[in-house]
Amino acid sequence: MLPDFQTLDDLRGLLADLPDPDATAAQGASDRNAQLTKPPGALGRLEDLAIWYAGWRGNPRPEVKAPQVIVFAGNHGVAALGVSAFPAAVTAQMVANFQAGGAAINQLAKLAGARMDVHAIDLDRPTADFTQEPAMSDTDCAAALRTGWNAVDAQADLLVVGEMGIANTTAAAALAHALFGGAAHDWTGRGTGIDDVTLDTKTRVVADGVKRHFGGDGLDLLARLGGREIAAMAGAIAAARFHRIPVILDGFICCAAAACLQAMNPSALDHCVAGHRSAEGAHAALLERLTLTPLLSLNLRLGEGSGAALAIQVVKAAMACHSGMATFAEAGVSEV
Amino acid sequence: MLPDFQTLDDLRGLLADLPDPDATAAQGASDRNAQLTKPPGALGRLEDLAIWYAGWRGNPRPEVKAPQVIVFAGNHGVAALGVSAFPAAVTAQMVANFQAGGAAINQLAKLAGARMDVHAIDLDRPTADFTQEPAMSDTDCAAALRTGWNAVDAQADLLVVGEMGIANTTAAAALAHALFGGAAHDWTGRGTGIDDVTLDTKTRVVADGVKRHFGGDGLDLLARLGGREIAAMAGAIAAARFHRIPVILDGFICCAAAACLQAMNPSALDHCVAGHRSAEGAHAALLERLTLTPLLSLNLRLGEGSGAALAIQVVKAAMACHSGMATFAEAGVSEV
Repeated sequence: MLPDFQTLDDLRGLLADLPDPDATAAQGASDRNAQLTKPPGALGRLEDLAIWYAGWRGNPRPEVKAPQVIVFAGNHGVAALGVSAFPAAVTAQMVANFQAGGAAINQLAKLAGARMDVHAIDLDRPTADFTQEPAMSDTDCAAALRTGWNAVDAQADLLVVGEMGIANTTAAAALAHALFGGAAHDWTGRGTGIDDVTLDTKTRVVADGVKRHFGGDGLDLLARLGGREIAAMAGAIAAARFHRIPVILDGFICCAAAACLQAMNPSALDHCVAGHRSAEGAHAALLERLTLTPLLSLNLRLGEGSGAALAIQVVKAAMACHSGMATFAEAGVSEV
Repeated sequence: MLPDFQTLDDLRGLLADLPDPDATAAQGASDRNAQLTKPPGALGRLEDLAIWYAGWRGNPRPEVKAPQVIVFAGNHGVAALGVSAFPAAVTAQMVANFQAGGAAINQLAKLAGARMDVHAIDLDRPTADFTQEPAMSDTDCAAALRTGWNAVDAQADLLVVGEMGIANTTAAAALAHALFGGAAHDWTGRGTGIDDVTLDTKTRVVADGVKRHFGGDGLDLLARLGGREIAAMAGAIAAARFHRIPVILDGFICCAAAACLQAMNPSALDHCVAGHRSAEGAHAALLERLTLTPLLSLNLRLGEGSGAALAIQVVKAAMACHSGMATFAEAGVSEV
């Protein structure tokens, strides 16, 4: 069912012709929604979510039973330029923390009843400093995309992709700046909590990188400015489309990965919802460019997939109501 | 542990001297929060929630294990004035639906792992038409308050109170108008989805009721303009304070009940958070008057406790992260 690819060009071909949702299932879900014991529209966003989810799953009355959370980790050449509050060694330390179950994402995935996988991608081989050369070769980028592509469980029914990678808000800011224009400072935020001086450095790094690598399509930019974990996220989001697994996007970095796909095909994110609006400065602007309305807005700015993992509960709730509620006829309740 | 009361005056006495959170537990939670493997503040609102919850539970590292959802139902004399899209018979029909497990709140309570109780209060004895006389006598109001007061499970560790009662947004609007001033139309919304003509009628009913019953304290207004289910919600919220059980407030009607308590004691809602901002017109304004910031904003306007029940997941997530995460020292992760 899932096609394979080797090169960025192979993937370009796949992204040009993406599967659509099942219109019959979506219509069936919409019909069912109208009969449930509640005033029309009273479940608000949950109703839209239910119909959207049903369409992608090809089932008018599905439930969320097997969510998957995948955390990808990668290291970044630009970390050496002093753009983060934390040393690059923290990436590997946090991967160990994920594996030991001690991070926020572990608790949130567990609470959501989600399977959690961690993929640390070549942590001892950071990407190149993108102010000097492309972060990755096309071959390296394709390999990272394939790591994500193949990490998705075909049996999952909802996907969250998260990340860990010291300096990866710098890479994400560069991607957003290259894809959507504006000024470097529009897209550069405080990440894990940097001071003003570090923010100046980070903004300069973003500006320099985008100046050097301007042009090309979403996958070109992903290779030149992204990171292995960012490419893997994009790969996983794209694979989910072929599996017809709905995706909950996380914060700024996840959305930068998603934006690279959207740049390749305007409908590439139709199977995605925005899990939350992060407190990371430019995430709100990025969501706007992606025309996505976040489910949650709780000032999270942790990454790891944390906001999206929390939003699993919202999608679960939507489907539990949609598929579990009685209809007016079943319950003997008078309609309007 | 829970004091008892018989009359509104007895309750006035209790509300004048409410228990405070445990400052030592809150400080312990704050200290723990600073050591968890995340950048400072990166879990945003979840961090504040965790410290707040720990203070009320008197435990620096608690989890949410036994949430309780209580749905109170009551009927309203003003329903006969044509203020709702649904006939009053729907209150009892929906109670049967709650008991059979077919309503939205059943699905949401189940998803949250919450115990759910339903209290239908004298459905065959609607409150009086408050445009003509007090909705309830003080004795009836005290009885409804006691129903809520005694419905709270002392073993619960998180409480949601919801409601069902055709025409109860009319009563809630009257309470908000009486408590906070402004004009009747500022507080009168479309409830289950009424048309413009019905909205005019409803606004006039609210204005007439408030004009007739203006003055008095929060409990006086609750009796004169409220309803049995609204009084029961207020009783349950107040009882939770004595049990030190944190409360997640639901939408407009729940917040109108809470506002009556706040009118009695400005700190009466310190053990409460706002679960969501409802799509019901004046809920946002009511939350502002209560100085509460909602956890969710998903355009729900169903009542039943649905928005708050969904928000249980947010509080659970906050506590799962707070109590389950590793510290920097435990995980061997470098700090800033």
